[in-house]
Amino acid sequence: MTPALVITMGDAAGIGPECVVRAFAQGRAPDCVVIGDVGVMRRASALLAQPMVVARIDAPQDLDALPPRCVPVIEPPGLPPGLDRLAWGRVDARAGRAAALCIEQAVRTVQAGAASAVVTAPIHKEALAAAGIGFPGHTEMLQALAAAPGAAPPPVRMMLANDELRVVLVTIHQSLRRAIEGVTFDAVLQTLRIAHGAAAAWGIERPRIAVAGLNPHAGEGGLFGDEERSIIGPAVAAACTEGIDARGPFAPDTVFMRARNAPGHAGEFDIVIAMTHDHGLIPVKYLGVERGVNVTLGLPFVRTSPDHGTAFDIAGRGVADASSLVAAIETARRAR
Amino acid sequence: MTPALVITMGDAAGIGPECVVRAFAQGRAPDCVVIGDVGVMRRASALLAQPMVVARIDAPQDLDALPPRCVPVIEPPGLPPGLDRLAWGRVDARAGRAAALCIEQAVRTVQAGAASAVVTAPIHKEALAAAGIGFPGHTEMLQALAAAPGAAPPPVRMMLANDELRVVLVTIHQSLRRAIEGVTFDAVLQTLRIAHGAAAAWGIERPRIAVAGLNPHAGEGGLFGDEERSIIGPAVAAACTEGIDARGPFAPDTVFMRARNAPGHAGEFDIVIAMTHDHGLIPVKYLGVERGVNVTLGLPFVRTSPDHGTAFDIAGRGVADASSLVAAIETARRAR
Repeated sequence: MTPALVITMGDAAGIGPECVVRAFAQGRAPDCVVIGDVGVMRRASALLAQPMVVARIDAPQDLDALPPRCVPVIEPPGLPPGLDRLAWGRVDARAGRAAALCIEQAVRTVQAGAASAVVTAPIHKEALAAAGIGFPGHTEMLQALAAAPGAAPPPVRMMLANDELRVVLVTIHQSLRRAIEGVTFDAVLQTLRIAHGAAAAWGIERPRIAVAGLNPHAGEGGLFGDEERSIIGPAVAAACTEGIDARGPFAPDTVFMRARNAPGHAGEFDIVIAMTHDHGLIPVKYLGVERGVNVTLGLPFVRTSPDHGTAFDIAGRGVADASSLVAAIETARRAR
Repeated sequence: MTPALVITMGDAAGIGPECVVRAFAQGRAPDCVVIGDVGVMRRASALLAQPMVVARIDAPQDLDALPPRCVPVIEPPGLPPGLDRLAWGRVDARAGRAAALCIEQAVRTVQAGAASAVVTAPIHKEALAAAGIGFPGHTEMLQALAAAPGAAPPPVRMMLANDELRVVLVTIHQSLRRAIEGVTFDAVLQTLRIAHGAAAAWGIERPRIAVAGLNPHAGEGGLFGDEERSIIGPAVAAACTEGIDARGPFAPDTVFMRARNAPGHAGEFDIVIAMTHDHGLIPVKYLGVERGVNVTLGLPFVRTSPDHGTAFDIAGRGVADASSLVAAIETARRAR
């Protein structure tokens, strides 16, 4: 039997549950098990033109005994009651707490060997905060959950990928002011090591890695900032001495264009390292979020997710697009 | 007689002169006069498969007396000697000084009514600095040159535009640290006013203007930074009270995708305001710099330029692409 993929339901008031049932309805998730609330998944299923049967199961191995065209759900212990009556599109501490419990259960399932990879539906960071969860996002939570008892969490990095680009981020969910402080020699070098090490899983032996600068024109020789000369350049040089094919720092505004891999436009690089969340995500999302997948590099298991959020503005309306979640499922399936 | 456009030659060691002669060779600049060095333009012309005749003239009105397929050049007084023997692709103070003199002469020409618009070829900021020119780029220099004697320079903003996007920048040529300090209520509101006011010239009566945030997820409700709530949001609200159709702040990583205007993808906005150089320029350049045009908004005359740089790595090799300069010429011609 092929190990299952586990999919978390995400924030119960967002589009996550709907995207998940839609992936099942489209036949794109036959080897997947949802970690979520049965009531929430039933409410999401009712949004479909042809609702799916939602079945509670106890463990991934129960998947084989289910009839086809059924959404199997494992409920983590301790879910708050009434999740299926939450207002759509509103920040709610109960949704934040439930989302966190599902992520924890998904990691435990894959750590126990009962699933091969984790796919996460979108959560809402304000709901997490309202529930008192001390993590700003999925990545940080997964990192903590993946740590061995007593050991430091493994260093991880967020990669966003679509058909044209793979972008790995040095800093993510913090203010731009704090992100600048997070661009250190160690952080850049570690990002290069993680990106280089992960590429083997995608079949790239020696990835060509471009490093974007932090400042306009990559500092324009020091006129527009010093981080390229004092931090990023030395980290690139150090990576090269370790056998990593790292180049740069390049001007942020053209390096993504140069790396873009499209028909008639062979990219110059396999991976781009970006210093900030938005330097990296603006180009990945520019042609449409439905094509992008978020991959966490550095964890001891495969984790992917769609690169859109909870989309509270359209939650509950039955119009959510599952394309990016389906792409995340397919990426997780290939990498397991 | 239609007033001429003036084109500056840019940095003599970069691809600017070659792009300029190529635009003439392609028949795309019949109403243009170059402000530059005759020797530099002849050296650039010699890079073409079919070199053009370069003719020194004294004033734009001499254009009509020239034979066709000829590159007319006005030399500003005071050019350093030997510019046509500079090494290709090297920073040189003489090239910086010559570039600045050409820009000054171009502005004087358009201020005197002898030309209708200024198109500028790329300069190199390190060469400017080496020449002791106290401006980090074209925009700041044009702003100072446009000021009336004794009056403050007019507030201007850089717009980058291609077929899909129009992006106006709040901050430009400074380190990211300093750019964050430059995101003030007044700077954002003034950018909104300038962008709104300029749109009439492109035939848009009431432009839909989206404002991008500064921080990831536009601050995620304050968790990732406060500028959206304390600065950008209030500036958007103030603009709305003035009758400007301003919206946001939106998450930087998706607002450009939403504004993108392409076949089958009608953009939600006519203009996006970006807080930093690279937030704005990454999406404009992603599909290729050859399609982008730089427009300075707020000056008392029209000024456009290609959105690439001096490309020192390919200067002198005869392979430069004049597409963006041609697009800049066409944009200037339409707006005059």
